[in-house]
Amino acid sequence: MLPRNFVAMSERTENGMKARVLLQQCLHARLQVKPPDAGSEAEWVEINRGMVIYICFFKGATEDIIPKMVNTLLNMKLCETESGKYTTVLQLPGSVLIVPQATLGGKPKGKGMQYHGNIGKDEGLKLYDSFVSHCQDELSACKNSDTVTEVKHGTYGNRQVLKLDTNGPYTHLMEF
Amino acid sequence: MLPRNFVAMSERTENGMKARVLLQQCLHARLQVKPPDAGSEAEWVEINRGMVIYICFFKGATEDIIPKMVNTLLNMKLCETESGKYTTVLQLPGSVLIVPQATLGGKPKGKGMQYHGNIGKDEGLKLYDSFVSHCQDELSACKNSDTVTEVKHGTYGNRQVLKLDTNGPYTHLMEF
Repeated sequence: MLPRNFVAMSERTENGMKARVLLQQCLHARLQVKPPDAGSEAEWVEINRGMVIYICFFKGATEDIIPKMVNTLLNMKLCETESGKYTTVLQLPGSVLIVPQATLGGKPKGKGMQYHGNIGKDEGLKLYDSFVSHCQDELSACKNSDTVTEVKHGTYGNRQVLKLDTNGPYTHLMEF
Repeated sequence: MLPRNFVAMSERTENGMKARVLLQQCLHARLQVKPPDAGSEAEWVEINRGMVIYICFFKGATEDIIPKMVNTLLNMKLCETESGKYTTVLQLPGSVLIVPQATLGGKPKGKGMQYHGNIGKDEGLKLYDSFVSHCQDELSACKNSDTVTEVKHGTYGNRQVLKLDTNGPYTHLMEF
């Protein structure tokens, strides 16, 4: 008989899901990237109008999925213009805040959550860095000199202390 | 041949998912429940420490799923105590902010999202009201006279203008 954890992992693999992403629209978002310590205050990054991307990778995710993921996410027409129509974050133009969020990979088990399907920390960090880098490249390529848009991101493995101000988050789930 | 929408709907039914819920932990959250108009300012509700529940119902969802959903959600150990352990929102004790979020039911189609699996507005409103009412009942039943905990909720069908302040949202997805 297979141990219970093995079954959970193999379900993930059969399921074939490599990453889960949550998208929220924001007017302003602020994320801690370094907690305070004895010698220094906390450090934060922030964006104004744009999109918050919460991301979690599953076991089996590999580098080759990143370019397509980023291209898909940045070209979804989920951002509201002044006139109430929807356009992409690139065309808005808006900024992007990327938040690593391993909890998104949880599966309920009793009164808690289990994370057996989540990718290991080292592999996850590599994919996360690549995801951030691809987002930066796509935003730079689309840059309009009249507007300031930026990609900001949280520190992988840290607590993601987040403050979010929205005009309606329009929360969307996407799985890859 | 079946029309395209019918196929999408029947996939949902086979899949059997009745509701999708997203949970985030908060220190403070503020939600608009009435937009401003010529005669009056916007109205807001707010909670302090507790849990934000974003909820979306799918076609086929019925009243009988609500008690189990609410019981499960309010008894998940996802809330961090002062000592860094995890407990339920009822035991924290914390407040609950319920945000109707139909966008959570979206399925990507090209560069946009389709919502063919979402429940109709009238049925959705009934389930939403029942969900809110069951949350209020569970929180009242657990009430500790030393603490002020509340259930607050958004207006179904409105734009959900939300401001969120977290010490780490610990975003979790749950499907019923």
